[in-house]
Amino acid sequence: MNESSFNPVTDTIVDELRDIVGPSYVVYGDADKLQPYSHDEIPDRHYAHMPDVLARPRTAEDIAAVMKLANRDRIAVTPRGAGSGLSGGAVPIHGGIVLLCDRMNEILEVDEANMMLVAEPGVVTAEINERLAGTGLFYAGYPMSLETCSLGGNVAENAGGGKAVKYGVTSRYVLGLEVVTPTGEIVQLGGKLIKDVTGYSLVPLMLGSEGTLGIFTKITLKLSPAPRSSVDLLALFKTAEDAIAAVPTIMTEGGIVPTAIEFIDRNAVKLACDYLNETLPYQDAGAMLLLTCDGPTTEQVEREYEAIGEQCLAAGGIEVYVADNATTTERIWSVRRNIAEAAALLGEHQANEDLVVPPAAIAELVLGLEAISRKHDVFMPAYGHAGDGNIHTRIIKRPETSIEDWQAALPGVLREVYTLTARLGGRISGEHGIGHKRKAHMGQFVSEAYLDLCRSLKKAWDPNGVLNPGKIFDL
Amino acid sequence: MNESSFNPVTDTIVDELRDIVGPSYVVYGDADKLQPYSHDEIPDRHYAHMPDVLARPRTAEDIAAVMKLANRDRIAVTPRGAGSGLSGGAVPIHGGIVLLCDRMNEILEVDEANMMLVAEPGVVTAEINERLAGTGLFYAGYPMSLETCSLGGNVAENAGGGKAVKYGVTSRYVLGLEVVTPTGEIVQLGGKLIKDVTGYSLVPLMLGSEGTLGIFTKITLKLSPAPRSSVDLLALFKTAEDAIAAVPTIMTEGGIVPTAIEFIDRNAVKLACDYLNETLPYQDAGAMLLLTCDGPTTEQVEREYEAIGEQCLAAGGIEVYVADNATTTERIWSVRRNIAEAAALLGEHQANEDLVVPPAAIAELVLGLEAISRKHDVFMPAYGHAGDGNIHTRIIKRPETSIEDWQAALPGVLREVYTLTARLGGRISGEHGIGHKRKAHMGQFVSEAYLDLCRSLKKAWDPNGVLNPGKIFDL
Repeated sequence: MNESSFNPVTDTIVDELRDIVGPSYVVYGDADKLQPYSHDEIPDRHYAHMPDVLARPRTAEDIAAVMKLANRDRIAVTPRGAGSGLSGGAVPIHGGIVLLCDRMNEILEVDEANMMLVAEPGVVTAEINERLAGTGLFYAGYPMSLETCSLGGNVAENAGGGKAVKYGVTSRYVLGLEVVTPTGEIVQLGGKLIKDVTGYSLVPLMLGSEGTLGIFTKITLKLSPAPRSSVDLLALFKTAEDAIAAVPTIMTEGGIVPTAIEFIDRNAVKLACDYLNETLPYQDAGAMLLLTCDGPTTEQVEREYEAIGEQCLAAGGIEVYVADNATTTERIWSVRRNIAEAAALLGEHQANEDLVVPPAAIAELVLGLEAISRKHDVFMPAYGHAGDGNIHTRIIKRPETSIEDWQAALPGVLREVYTLTARLGGRISGEHGIGHKRKAHMGQFVSEAYLDLCRSLKKAWDPNGVLNPGKIFDL
Repeated sequence: MNESSFNPVTDTIVDELRDIVGPSYVVYGDADKLQPYSHDEIPDRHYAHMPDVLARPRTAEDIAAVMKLANRDRIAVTPRGAGSGLSGGAVPIHGGIVLLCDRMNEILEVDEANMMLVAEPGVVTAEINERLAGTGLFYAGYPMSLETCSLGGNVAENAGGGKAVKYGVTSRYVLGLEVVTPTGEIVQLGGKLIKDVTGYSLVPLMLGSEGTLGIFTKITLKLSPAPRSSVDLLALFKTAEDAIAAVPTIMTEGGIVPTAIEFIDRNAVKLACDYLNETLPYQDAGAMLLLTCDGPTTEQVEREYEAIGEQCLAAGGIEVYVADNATTTERIWSVRRNIAEAAALLGEHQANEDLVVPPAAIAELVLGLEAISRKHDVFMPAYGHAGDGNIHTRIIKRPETSIEDWQAALPGVLREVYTLTARLGGRISGEHGIGHKRKAHMGQFVSEAYLDLCRSLKKAWDPNGVLNPGKIFDL
């Protein structure tokens, strides 16, 4: 199967798309209007590619009809949510049709008795907990882009985020999916069941499949009792080394699993504070940990955060601030959430990375990144979900470096970053996905036998290779 | 692909097997020694089938060599752990080779810094926490058969068990797998990573695949901080209706997620108490709930169990007993764990069921089962993981019923049980699996489109259909 041999989108195809989704929901022949759908949030625009046509379906049946058409004429289809991805998963690298799911944006059901919620893929993630306010329930997913990203993308990428240390990633909460298969069948997977081994577990297989195995049209989420108390700690450390070394200790000693353990180095916090015009007391600190404890009672949370605060100080922390009200908490988390956006403003000459290593190797990873940054004289703020072993770094061109020098240097920097990660038993994506950005590096982290399993699965379900081609691996 | 067209095991094949695993680890031509491998723990022996030969591999390479041979000559291979399954997953219904993993029984690594453990599939589940004693860590899996079942089988069936309300089922803890594929390749999936989206999530797909997609040779488990305090409550209710109606309330009110909410009706508790010669104060009760709270401190656990105890009384409980020491706790849980074994002694004329419904529908399910039991005059003790919506029942012939009448009645009883379950949005297996026992009923619970996805995946990975053929669905 040659992925570059897709057929072009003809006027006839466009007419058929208009028949399926309605004439006002097709964009064709207007480069300005199509351009926003040529990229996601990767700063480096060399990963962008224009679609031929945009279609905005309203129903699973719309999507099924588009997939039938795409199979009939062998046209590439790329599903897209909010476009907030960081690996190119929603970028139509073979052109063709972009299926934008923004019209499928309803929360269909809040089922309090079962502690579940059913939503369409275009629902913005933050809306879920807004809707649940007052029910005593909450959805534990908390991707950093929750104010803009949509649930379908969270499922497609198996989004992680800030609360995964305690609550796990998106896959822990997706109980059921309605999926349109690559060949255009509508199929129900899972359901309102906490446990279910009635056949293969296809729901978790869909999580993180980056829109290559199916398009989600209904998502059933498990909800949790909302914590009645929550406190954040901002623990400052003299060096990144001190801060990061404290993380495995917090995890293994004390018997407490915090909700969040976020690491932010000085470069990253300065970037976000400058961007937000925010002040945090980080002047004397080389790095900080942002920790959250939540639970059913104030007393329990107090006991937990006091124990963790003491652990931070014992591990060399120079100061621990407690944020126990919503305003301060939101200020701190806003800084954390805005690092990526602030960094993106530094221009397109940067690589956004999403390294994940065994949790005990986190210090070695962060120190290794610092060494690589010094050696190559590149700006590399580091931050992320230290409790999960998942560190983001951005490798950013310094203003004084020429574009030519930068382009010559970047592959070598990346090679060292990936070699370090591989040596620590890590992988190149903890939550952002592979897309086409990291595809060429897969062979360094997974075996050919593994890729063969992935390829044969993909070919079995998508014999014409039309759904989101060119992502994760080549066929 | 015709599953009945497997080739017979010849003397040449047996010699090759002896070369692979060692001559003393092959059993052939001895019906008495092969008989134990013809069945699992399903009481009804009509689901049994004799293997042609038993081979006991020691390494992944042994298994890979057997799979290569099986593909070359098209011979059925059925992997087997402790044989404690309840759906026939380990029964060689097409004869051929049974691969018994009992020699692969080492805990290979306790990695305290990463809070992980690596084990071979033949490790008995209870050994894991025995090994972890004193580390402050524990493995949260707790299948009811933990003293006899093995980890490989837990993975193959995605075992649930007693603590899944709070801790989830086996899949939440399996981070990495070494797998021998149906065609005999050794492949590493996942690893010591808490989060990982570097390619398709094949680890959770393997969970519950019942040995049809691969044979697990190394299993990496995530461990948790061991709870420092744990208390069990035995809450007695006048009727099953009262007991089961309390369950969704406990789940949705109070904001506390208990570790366990087990339901045991009077029939089930009497069976197990008689079998164990144990006394529990159930004389005036129609049913009981066994609830566990655990956590990092005594105070927290106390607060939780007091709140839950009050909820039970408010929901109509007639008495709540507290078990806060290891001896009493073990007595109560031993009763719960031995219900299946006690029921199995009532003879082979019984059907063991593993129904799962949305948690809010649990009362309707249990009351419906009582009505069916009365209508058909069959003995149907009911028990199980009420907090997960997962209820076991055994449909058991009364001594005074003739075998002919029983055989005439059972299909009708099962039909009503399954129709009720389907009407409530449920499925036929929460944790025991489909195997060949429930295969014929799949069509009532999942769609043909779903089965097509499963079949095409199976065919892609096992083109000769040699690995555990005839389970879950027909090709």
